Amino acid sequence: MGTRLTWPGLDWTHGYDRATLSSDLVAAVIVTLMLIPQSLAYASLAGLPPQVGLYASMAPLLFYAAFGSSRVLAVGPVAVVSLMTAAAIGDLAQTGSPAYGLLAITLAFISGAMLLLMGLLRLGFLANFLSHPVISGFITASALLIAVGQLKVILGIQVPGHNFFESLPALILQLPNAHALSAAIGLGTVAFLFWAKRGVKPLLRLLGLGPRLADALARAAPVAGIAVTAVLTWAGQWHEQGVRIVGTVPQGVPPLTLPSWDLALWQQLAVPALLISVVGFVESVSVGQTLAAKRRQRIEPDRELVALGASNLGAALTGGFPVTGGFARSVVNFDAGAQTPAAGIFTAMGIFLAALLLTPALYFVPQATLAATIVVAVLSLVDLHTLRSTWAYSRRDFSAVIVTLLLTLAAGVEAGLVGGVVLSLLLYLYKTSRPHIAEVGLVSGTEHFRNVLRHKVQVSSQLASLRVDESLYFANARVLEDRVNALVSERPELRHLVMQCSAINDIDASALESLEAIDQRLRDAGLCLHMSEVKGPVMDRLQTTDFLKHLSGKVYLTHYQAVSELAPEVMTRSEVDVRH
Amino acid sequence: MGTRLTWPGLDWTHGYDRATLSSDLVAAVIVTLMLIPQSLAYASLAGLPPQVGLYASMAPLLFYAAFGSSRVLAVGPVAVVSLMTAAAIGDLAQTGSPAYGLLAITLAFISGAMLLLMGLLRLGFLANFLSHPVISGFITASALLIAVGQLKVILGIQVPGHNFFESLPALILQLPNAHALSAAIGLGTVAFLFWAKRGVKPLLRLLGLGPRLADALARAAPVAGIAVTAVLTWAGQWHEQGVRIVGTVPQGVPPLTLPSWDLALWQQLAVPALLISVVGFVESVSVGQTLAAKRRQRIEPDRELVALGASNLGAALTGGFPVTGGFARSVVNFDAGAQTPAAGIFTAMGIFLAALLLTPALYFVPQATLAATIVVAVLSLVDLHTLRSTWAYSRRDFSAVIVTLLLTLAAGVEAGLVGGVVLSLLLYLYKTSRPHIAEVGLVSGTEHFRNVLRHKVQVSSQLASLRVDESLYFANARVLEDRVNALVSERPELRHLVMQCSAINDIDASALESLEAIDQRLRDAGLCLHMSEVKGPVMDRLQTTDFLKHLSGKVYLTHYQAVSELAPEVMTRSEVDVRH
Repeated sequence: MGTRLTWPGLDWTHGYDRATLSSDLVAAVIVTLMLIPQSLAYASLAGLPPQVGLYASMAPLLFYAAFGSSRVLAVGPVAVVSLMTAAAIGDLAQTGSPAYGLLAITLAFISGAMLLLMGLLRLGFLANFLSHPVISGFITASALLIAVGQLKVILGIQVPGHNFFESLPALILQLPNAHALSAAIGLGTVAFLFWAKRGVKPLLRLLGLGPRLADALARAAPVAGIAVTAVLTWAGQWHEQGVRIVGTVPQGVPPLTLPSWDLALWQQLAVPALLISVVGFVESVSVGQTLAAKRRQRIEPDRELVALGASNLGAALTGGFPVTGGFARSVVNFDAGAQTPAAGIFTAMGIFLAALLLTPALYFVPQATLAATIVVAVLSLVDLHTLRSTWAYSRRDFSAVIVTLLLTLAAGVEAGLVGGVVLSLLLYLYKTSRPHIAEVGLVSGTEHFRNVLRHKVQVSSQLASLRVDESLYFANARVLEDRVNALVSERPELRHLVMQCSAINDIDASALESLEAIDQRLRDAGLCLHMSEVKGPVMDRLQTTDFLKHLSGKVYLTHYQAVSELAPEVMTRSEVDVRH
Repeated sequence: MGTRLTWPGLDWTHGYDRATLSSDLVAAVIVTLMLIPQSLAYASLAGLPPQVGLYASMAPLLFYAAFGSSRVLAVGPVAVVSLMTAAAIGDLAQTGSPAYGLLAITLAFISGAMLLLMGLLRLGFLANFLSHPVISGFITASALLIAVGQLKVILGIQVPGHNFFESLPALILQLPNAHALSAAIGLGTVAFLFWAKRGVKPLLRLLGLGPRLADALARAAPVAGIAVTAVLTWAGQWHEQGVRIVGTVPQGVPPLTLPSWDLALWQQLAVPALLISVVGFVESVSVGQTLAAKRRQRIEPDRELVALGASNLGAALTGGFPVTGGFARSVVNFDAGAQTPAAGIFTAMGIFLAALLLTPALYFVPQATLAATIVVAVLSLVDLHTLRSTWAYSRRDFSAVIVTLLLTLAAGVEAGLVGGVVLSLLLYLYKTSRPHIAEVGLVSGTEHFRNVLRHKVQVSSQLASLRVDESLYFANARVLEDRVNALVSERPELRHLVMQCSAINDIDASALESLEAIDQRLRDAGLCLHMSEVKGPVMDRLQTTDFLKHLSGKVYLTHYQAVSELAPEVMTRSEVDVRH
């Protein structure tokens, strides 16, 4: 394959050789082993039959390989998106019914179309408005919601609702009614998987296995858990004692499907589909970027949108449900040595074989075992570190985390996510609307100016120096007006006001009008307004207006120049402490 | 009155003397003459009987005098708020009915309570989110809506709706059906008032009057217009020929009234009341600030909220409707020499006398004359200058003006205002989400660094310098990640990245995580991340975290130090043009 293809999604085919093929094949085998139980589990989390999870793990991988910019991202069902799918369509049809399956397909189709459109319109930046604190709070809350939901499956009990604060106490009260055998299977699997995370690899190394093989086998722990519990269930015929099992999984290739074209339904699904798209995109891109950087590669967010859009359309056309780039499987793919998207294609083939041949073997798999693999997977998403670190770093960011977290737990994934985004934007606007404005004075013997409240500096009674630490725009322009008005009314001897503009990256039309008003008022009161250290782009803009022509004072290159010219006595004065 | 009172609203009583009294009395007479026709006209614009305009011009003045911080602000009915009142309650009751009056009272009450609450909670900064472009577009659109509405009254024709783009063509099509005599009165008055704005004062001066008296008489032009047209109507008995007249205006003191306590109604009026409160507050404060500065006085926005709140509650308790500080009347009050809020109290007394004695004289005043005074008053609010200047200054600000303008004309005052605010916030967020990031190099022979795309500068192949011209927060943090990823993947020989942080006023938790991710990815790729010129407050924050401890590189006081240490060859190299 020595010829360079022009299709951007296939540039990795250039120079594809035997060594790369071998790396990709090994990675594919390991990821396939990991994906089989995950696919089944996430399908059941989304309220769908297990084979749908397998379907959603084939076409999306192929579509991503054709369009994506990451070489190692593995696309398929993931925990949070599956939860969001269940939340979006859970109230619209009976779980497990054909209508429910059609809703999932339609949701994937709408989400895919949105992602594709966002990619073509280069709207990837919209995802940036989902802040880290909001994502962290949302993912933690989602993980807790999922864990409680799966605990119900493990314990074989029914408790109402998606509201965490009602479900958790109800779950605890219902504990005496738990189905003991199911609980033993589920909790046993949970314990085994937690142990396996750390314990299996050293054990296998002790038994003399090589590090790569030991690692690969350790990742197959969920498969082992499923195999063992399925065999035990078959041997003990536990399903006759009330242990719920996967049952018959239709064997064969994924069906060709189409979404519903009901416009009213599309309107109903539009907001959930948008939220699923954005959350999936953000999760996928952050995984992709982290892994790409390790090999000094790069992913292109707008191309990722197109690729994820195509993947979801692929899922919709093959009987699947919404998918995205998963963290765990992509890391496994990377660590297992995947070099190119061919690893994804081989993985899709592996899942295809599993769907074709392996499904009868899944009959006796207990639901509790699948639930256990989900619980173990999602508990690693609970992020208490961010809660602690944002508390220490910024109360504003902390409030975004905690509000998103609590709102998601109390009111569900959609309300939590939207509420978190709106809150974080409002907090940002609030912060920028109250800029830090310092009156500064000269540090003796230097050309530096510092806050008069913090440092021993020299000032003049006739000249005031203000430094604004924020771009000036409509929300904070009047704050500056107020500050200047206060200054002028407090100091009758004032003759000059110099604004040090080194931190002002932009002045919008409102702020310009405020500056004109300030200048006019100062002039009316017998003062001059000067500016210093105005940035190039800001100056370019100001020069398109009359402002500089009408300005009562002058514009100085440095603040020191301004003060030397307007109040030279400051320069010669000995140090005075004006700390208040 | 030599004793100093502690009530902040009455601090002007200290040192009140005969000269001040005389100034205040003269101003009060002039403002009273101006307010009588305006009050009637704005009441009819709000869809209310004429006497309500007089009622709304008494108690609010007294309440403002007791609480306000401006010495010359005149509070009462104004054009835009009257239009917003009509828009808010026009669909809820029959114009002119007692139910309609109760709605106006309730609206004033809710608006007053909101203003009072905002003042007590110090929420005045909320009004800052109404940008100059949005206000300008909104006021211009409101003026056009009012002018078209009043033209219907002048022409005596009925055309449907509040939508400007339907009303204006309908008005033109209906022109042949205009009531000729009404139109003659109205348009004659419009012509007279436009002429009077410029022509009366010079004429009076020619006739030998002193400048102050000439000025005062010129301001009474609307009164003259009303008197003349009323006398003509009476003499010609024009009301029998279809000229609509004011008719019987109940004589006497304002009634004591209470708002409706219907909770469902309050919910319906809450949003309009909030918008009226904010628009009224912004208009009032900007007038107050402009006038206060001329005498080196100061107004306190939070106290203004309380005072305007009390004024509106006063209006609600005395049969009025929503009021605010008016531009025209306050300027007249100021120019006429008002020194203290006593001028407002005297004005209230003047209006009181008018309501008590003058109302029978208003019987024959044609509606067309009142409409003419409104048209002339509001056309001065049409602000085409801002359209032109924002177009030249910033397309972003221009789009805020034009969208607010068109949306208000097409969909009404509430949709226009809310749409404009939301749009301007989104535009601001969009802008800050795409920060200007420049790669900089050393200007030969200096310690200054400039954009490599704009200047001849010296750079190193092993070191890249990035300057970010925006505070880092969640919406732009990933843009920086992308930029760094691109840089690193394009330049395999790179070893150091130095971020010049002089324009970064804040780094939020998301941006901190992005910096950590950038640092980690650079480290994985064999690079070091350094920072220079980090601001004090930003540094304080970073020091509460582990970021600086884990940073692969160092933090330098100046960017020059960083480059001298990391890539000293740059300093000694001769000038190279790396312009792309």
